[in-house]
Amino acid sequence: MRLAEFFRLSSKANGTFPHEDPRAAEKLISLCHALLSERGEVSGRYLASEILGAYQSLDASTAAAFFNRVAAEFSPRPEEIGRAAEAYRKDSTPENLARLQRVVESPRQELFRRLNMAPGATRILVEMRARLLKDLEKNPGWSPIASDLAHLLTSWFNRGFLVLRRIDWQTPASVLEKLIEYEAVHQIQGWRDLRRRLEADRRCYGFFHPALPDEPIIFIEVALTRGMSAKVQPLLDPDSPLVDPESADCAMFYSITNCQKGLRGVPFGSFLIKQVAEEVGKEFPRIKTFATVSPVPDFRQWLRESQQAEKDGALSEKVSGLIAKLDEPDWVQDKQTYAEVERELVPLGAYYLLRVKQGKEPRDPVARFHLRNGARLERINWFGDTSVIGMQRSVGLMANYVYRLAEVERNHELYTKEYKVNASREVEALAKRSSSLGLAAR
Amino acid sequence: MRLAEFFRLSSKANGTFPHEDPRAAEKLISLCHALLSERGEVSGRYLASEILGAYQSLDASTAAAFFNRVAAEFSPRPEEIGRAAEAYRKDSTPENLARLQRVVESPRQELFRRLNMAPGATRILVEMRARLLKDLEKNPGWSPIASDLAHLLTSWFNRGFLVLRRIDWQTPASVLEKLIEYEAVHQIQGWRDLRRRLEADRRCYGFFHPALPDEPIIFIEVALTRGMSAKVQPLLDPDSPLVDPESADCAMFYSITNCQKGLRGVPFGSFLIKQVAEEVGKEFPRIKTFATVSPVPDFRQWLRESQQAEKDGALSEKVSGLIAKLDEPDWVQDKQTYAEVERELVPLGAYYLLRVKQGKEPRDPVARFHLRNGARLERINWFGDTSVIGMQRSVGLMANYVYRLAEVERNHELYTKEYKVNASREVEALAKRSSSLGLAAR
Amino acid sequence: MRLAEFFRLSSKANGTFPHEDPRAAEKLISLCHALLSERGEVSGRYLASEILGAYQSLDASTAAAFFNRVAAEFSPRPEEIGRAAEAYRKDSTPENLARLQRVVESPRQELFRRLNMAPGATRILVEMRARLLKDLEKNPGWSPIASDLAHLLTSWFNRGFLVLRRIDWQTPASVLEKLIEYEAVHQIQGWRDLRRRLEADRRCYGFFHPALPDEPIIFIEVALTRGMSAKVQPLLDPDSPLVDPESADCAMFYSITNCQKGLRGVPFGSFLIKQVAEEVGKEFPRIKTFATVSPVPDFRQWLRESQQAEKDGALSEKVSGLIAKLDEPDWVQDKQTYAEVERELVPLGAYYLLRVKQGKEPRDPVARFHLRNGARLERINWFGDTSVIGMQRSVGLMANYVYRLAEVERNHELYTKEYKVNASREVEALAKRSSSLGLAAR
Amino acid sequence: MRLAEFFRLSSKANGTFPHEDPRAAEKLISLCHALLSERGEVSGRYLASEILGAYQSLDASTAAAFFNRVAAEFSPRPEEIGRAAEAYRKDSTPENLARLQRVVESPRQELFRRLNMAPGATRILVEMRARLLKDLEKNPGWSPIASDLAHLLTSWFNRGFLVLRRIDWQTPASVLEKLIEYEAVHQIQGWRDLRRRLEADRRCYGFFHPALPDEPIIFIEVALTRGMSAKVQPLLDPDSPLVDPESADCAMFYSITNCQKGLRGVPFGSFLIKQVAEEVGKEFPRIKTFATVSPVPDFRQWLRESQQAEKDGALSEKVSGLIAKLDEPDWVQDKQTYAEVERELVPLGAYYLLRVKQGKEPRDPVARFHLRNGARLERINWFGDTSVIGMQRSVGLMANYVYRLAEVERNHELYTKEYKVNASREVEALAKRSSSLGLAAR
Repeated sequence: MRLAEFFRLSSKANGTFPHEDPRAAEKLISLCHALLSERGEVSGRYLASEILGAYQSLDASTAAAFFNRVAAEFSPRPEEIGRAAEAYRKDSTPENLARLQRVVESPRQELFRRLNMAPGATRILVEMRARLLKDLEKNPGWSPIASDLAHLLTSWFNRGFLVLRRIDWQTPASVLEKLIEYEAVHQIQGWRDLRRRLEADRRCYGFFHPALPDEPIIFIEVALTRGMSAKVQPLLDPDSPLVDPESADCAMFYSITNCQKGLRGVPFGSFLIKQVAEEVGKEFPRIKTFATVSPVPDFRQWLRESQQAEKDGALSEKVSGLIAKLDEPDWVQDKQTYAEVERELVPLGAYYLLRVKQGKEPRDPVARFHLRNGARLERINWFGDTSVIGMQRSVGLMANYVYRLAEVERNHELYTKEYKVNASREVEALAKRSSSLGLAAR
Repeated sequence: MRLAEFFRLSSKANGTFPHEDPRAAEKLISLCHALLSERGEVSGRYLASEILGAYQSLDASTAAAFFNRVAAEFSPRPEEIGRAAEAYRKDSTPENLARLQRVVESPRQELFRRLNMAPGATRILVEMRARLLKDLEKNPGWSPIASDLAHLLTSWFNRGFLVLRRIDWQTPASVLEKLIEYEAVHQIQGWRDLRRRLEADRRCYGFFHPALPDEPIIFIEVALTRGMSAKVQPLLDPDSPLVDPESADCAMFYSITNCQKGLRGVPFGSFLIKQVAEEVGKEFPRIKTFATVSPVPDFRQWLRESQQAEKDGALSEKVSGLIAKLDEPDWVQDKQTYAEVERELVPLGAYYLLRVKQGKEPRDPVARFHLRNGARLERINWFGDTSVIGMQRSVGLMANYVYRLAEVERNHELYTKEYKVNASREVEALAKRSSSLGLAAR
Repeated sequence: MRLAEFFRLSSKANGTFPHEDPRAAEKLISLCHALLSERGEVSGRYLASEILGAYQSLDASTAAAFFNRVAAEFSPRPEEIGRAAEAYRKDSTPENLARLQRVVESPRQELFRRLNMAPGATRILVEMRARLLKDLEKNPGWSPIASDLAHLLTSWFNRGFLVLRRIDWQTPASVLEKLIEYEAVHQIQGWRDLRRRLEADRRCYGFFHPALPDEPIIFIEVALTRGMSAKVQPLLDPDSPLVDPESADCAMFYSITNCQKGLRGVPFGSFLIKQVAEEVGKEFPRIKTFATVSPVPDFRQWLRESQQAEKDGALSEKVSGLIAKLDEPDWVQDKQTYAEVERELVPLGAYYLLRVKQGKEPRDPVARFHLRNGARLERINWFGDTSVIGMQRSVGLMANYVYRLAEVERNHELYTKEYKVNASREVEALAKRSSSLGLAAR
Repeated sequence: MRLAEFFRLSSKANGTFPHEDPRAAEKLISLCHALLSERGEVSGRYLASEILGAYQSLDASTAAAFFNRVAAEFSPRPEEIGRAAEAYRKDSTPENLARLQRVVESPRQELFRRLNMAPGATRILVEMRARLLKDLEKNPGWSPIASDLAHLLTSWFNRGFLVLRRIDWQTPASVLEKLIEYEAVHQIQGWRDLRRRLEADRRCYGFFHPALPDEPIIFIEVALTRGMSAKVQPLLDPDSPLVDPESADCAMFYSITNCQKGLRGVPFGSFLIKQVAEEVGKEFPRIKTFATVSPVPDFRQWLRESQQAEKDGALSEKVSGLIAKLDEPDWVQDKQTYAEVERELVPLGAYYLLRVKQGKEPRDPVARFHLRNGARLERINWFGDTSVIGMQRSVGLMANYVYRLAEVERNHELYTKEYKVNASREVEALAKRSSSLGLAAR
């Protein structure tokens, strides 16, 4: 009997469902050992297909059993390491080093490399890491498995193997539906919304890997505009009027989405922004400004904490009062409150982005990402994101980070060496004002 | 001044030539350190391009200096290893293991991974390994560099990332000229010869890697024939008549070529043969026999040694006399000698392939490759390769190894576990006869 | 001033709208004359682009003025024809014939051929014919323009230039949205519905023309089923379970849509059905039955007429009574009526399809199409289409026409020569029964 | 028995050769009649394939018999034409016109349109016209067939259906070998020569038709140079040094080749030059000069005639003496003669191109083509083409015609309306000098 039959391989067509089978994990493990043996050299591709097919049909508890065995049986052997380390200590020859390198590498890595020979394997291995990460807290023993996969995937998804592809209305529907599924920053409301985001005054680019041709790894959405956008909702409106792209002078990056949970920790975003800026700049030489419309996602949380702080860093009573009003229904209708909130909160936002730190870096994660990446904090926009989540997290603020290709590298160096943040005079001035305004003492 | 200018980057267009520059290697090395630093994270792609561009313009002696520095400065640090090994010895936690894994890995590997971010980098890294291997004997200190590259390239050129592509007359000329350049087994005499090898009764397939779209990694040439070919020259004749492929019942694999010296040691051949057999079988369901026409490259050398042997394994006088005749001019014209040579040498060839061992495996390298791969030794053909090299090495013998997909795996297992060779009765009978014939005593 | 500026060329980007301009038609006409002159030879492409751009910006009444002028000024000249015909009458030489051929051809044809030089012109000419056909009744003088276009388009959309392409979920969204837009037989309810129609147990094929790469000319939807489908609704249900295509034995053609109104009268359907049957048969050798699920669109109308007929061909009172019941709400719930309607109407449907003629051919247009095409009327299904329109037109009947590639040509010949209809025994028997049932006298 | 079997269809694979068969032409003709009948509507594609397959296997004399029958049996009917013409004369209604149009059109046209339904038919019809044209002198009766094909092919190969494709070393070998085969102006000496012509400092573009994907219709070769090339041999030298294309300021069109004899008379060249100039200009904004290096192919012939002329237009004795020297071996070595020839002949060449007419246009065919096309005669180069044929026809002269996109249309109009030739002052001055030099009297 073929293994695949044994596992009654689930497939869409026949609709078999995953099921628990105590022997299944054991059988899979013995196939994995076979794959690592001599036999794997010749029949590797076939064996790898069988293993991955069977793996995909495992139910949750059998998969857990399988992972436990993988953690236990395909790890480096301490005794071997001990002997090799001792030999190297005594005599640090290249041969002894090579031996030590060999024995400290998890056999898992070779296992995964051989599994990858099967057609479609890379996608399954990416999903396997996602599955491991999801349940890592409950199963800390799986951590080395996830690390080994991370090591391989970082190497395999090296920038040199990624392909930048434009995504537009000519793109296959099988890719486009992934955008709808994955977009996390500003959800796509179906095909009509998507179509607007791919019109002539928009650009969408993604990185793809040749082994996952239908799967964007990361994608970015850009609007070509006249003037730098202060608000994101007009860009998201499916009925917004088309801008003649030849008349645009700004490229606004309004959403960037990492698609593969299994690739968490593999950095793609910084590459993508800069390369897309180059592409757009080549296509539209009149476009000189490349900027984001970004949320300030932890601002509200920091405000909350500052309200509760007792001394330094506490907010003035006035500001505290204002923040309390934000929770009242319809405060937006109240013109006076609205104006006061703007007057008080925008400087506080500047202060938050420029002065509030986590270690030596800004506390705000989006600021950290773009500033480390070499961008400049250009402007803070009141009521830039009026969505529920925008109000809840950023109190409606949106920040524009500008990418000037000529200064990106210098900014990045100043940031990484001296934690120096590049911000416009305007934002600097706002941050300064905030101290006299919002914070009780400083 | 840009580094690329400093190195006066050689390019086809401006025709600058590589030149010696004592400071060049040093500057390159300092750029490599920068690439591994923080700065590399953001400007990595740009830095990597600069390094690889400059590297390519190095003359031989500067390149050697560069490699020496790479060997010296990007190796693991013994003290770090010592500390980490000691910590792990005392407490074998996953964290201590991870730390040990980190410090034993050559910083070179990360260096090469970051270099690979540059466009076109993979090709240059493959060539770099070829360059290292070529001069390894004179520079044994480069061995760890070559090993680190081997480790990465094996991972990157994993079967799961290779694409099988048919090569025919519709293929771009830029790929076809590579076939002419690389084919080593049976040289291609220009475009007319190549065209014949790509006609309707031929198939040619290669593995390609997405990062090297114009470069075959390995390719195989197949002739569709009626009956199993005993001789290779008719297949190589550019004026040979076309066979209607629908009438063919055999697919003869007559040449397989590894193209990239920088990928030496990464095994592709066994995958390719089997996958091409499947492809051809699907396209032509009437084709049932998949077989090679292979040389017996060390046969003559073994005969020579056996002549000189004094006791066991020595050849009979009669046979020795015959072999001596082979060196005479025009022995082929002498019908009697020709017949005698055939009568004596074919059984000896069978004996050589089946009984003469190197360790537990056959001495003949081609036999080792195909038998280990799961093939069966089907037939030995007298005067199957009448080329100068064919006569010099194989005394004109050609062997047919047959691949039966159904038995490949079993053959492979029997071979790897018990060193059992699968051969046809006919060849077995010949090998038996040989003992009564050729060998003085056994 | 450029002509395009003069017409303030409408474009999506700047949002100018068509507008009336008395001089616009005149200017366009003079450009058309220029295009036919010497100047057109060198600047043809540029002129043609200008003309078509300007044409597209015309409002309805200016376009009408333009068409009137085209009808008047680019027609053959009666005097020239008279002279050439007289010359040919006197002396029927090839030269005189050639001259006559030249002068009877509309200058319009050359005009359209030269317009077609512009990028994207073919699509605009197809739309131009659609526009002409739409208003032909009110403007009979445009008929020769439409005929000239028809002549050219028939030649240009020759089967030899059409490309059969599979349409699936990998197809660009720009093509897929056209399916949603054009599908007329069984409307597609958005992207989810479309996706179901492109799953693994479906096939969709279209003819495309290289000059209109995003525009299907005609497309056909096929469901792979086990057993011949009697009903269409299960095939249209987006939640219908997937069939394993390898287990299917029937290919059901359930919808065929002509997309381009401007190509009315150019026949594509018969080619498409047979070629798709071949493609599907090659992909799934187990599929032996290729059949349609077709409406009987004029059945209800004929019943209505037959009720009103006074003598021969009138329906029996019983049947008339039944038909009257169909208009009652909820008759379907009434089991007895339902059963009676089925018992009476199915034979009448068979009678209608086989015996009721328009000239020598069946009165039913769908029957005419498939029978002339070489199909066989295999089965009539009660309650096969329960949609509102299905009930209104076909009283819910659906017919299966079967395409057997081996007999298609013979059926076609018998049909075109002798008007012989190929029907199954079952349907023949039903038709026979109907005379004793439904019709008052025969 | 299938027709294809009857004709024992020739194919490369089975190597059957065309053969004479008296019944073959007759059978083909009867199939053609069937194709035009009702039956053709449904089985047209199949029938057309059979006819074209059988047609291709005809030997020369049977093909001639077939063409004779096609000329006789598929022509318009004089009586029908007479009746329709009479009806139209009496009553010039659109209906009567349509009827006349219908009956004057050769049934051949519909025959060819239906033949074109077969896969690969367009190529065969193009070849059919080439075959007809080749033997037209001997068979004047075939002229209407060739005309009917010309009419259809002109419509089918409309500029709007042609695709401009760059040809380079990435192009499939199947297309590249056609360049070697077709290039007529400056023969390509094998693959090495071809490769040089496709390097980074060259551009090659062709028009392709979707129905003949592997066949260039016409192609043009361009060299990117610094300064306007005066000589063609350096451009043709496979060992010529590469020019950095980014440093080039001129695009020299040095060869343009019509590939398909069957499309003789269908004009493509003028489109191609201008479109390629646009493409190259877009790719290299620094290139401002688009010029040809063209032969003066009838110059020598005109010199010969002028020598023999007795009065006006006769050459001076001195010039006649010089021309006589050209036939001596090694005149080029004789420095004095060489200098004299240059001094005398270059002005005469200018005179020939500008003043010597055929009707109102220049006598020189290449000059006619480029000047009519809107180019300007810029320069005449002594010893610009030193090939045997260049010396024999152009006495080594080469002309540069410059295409300035901004003035092409105006030049063309002045030329077509007033036969005004646009030439540089330099060439005008040379032509003026020539009268005092070369011509005896004027």
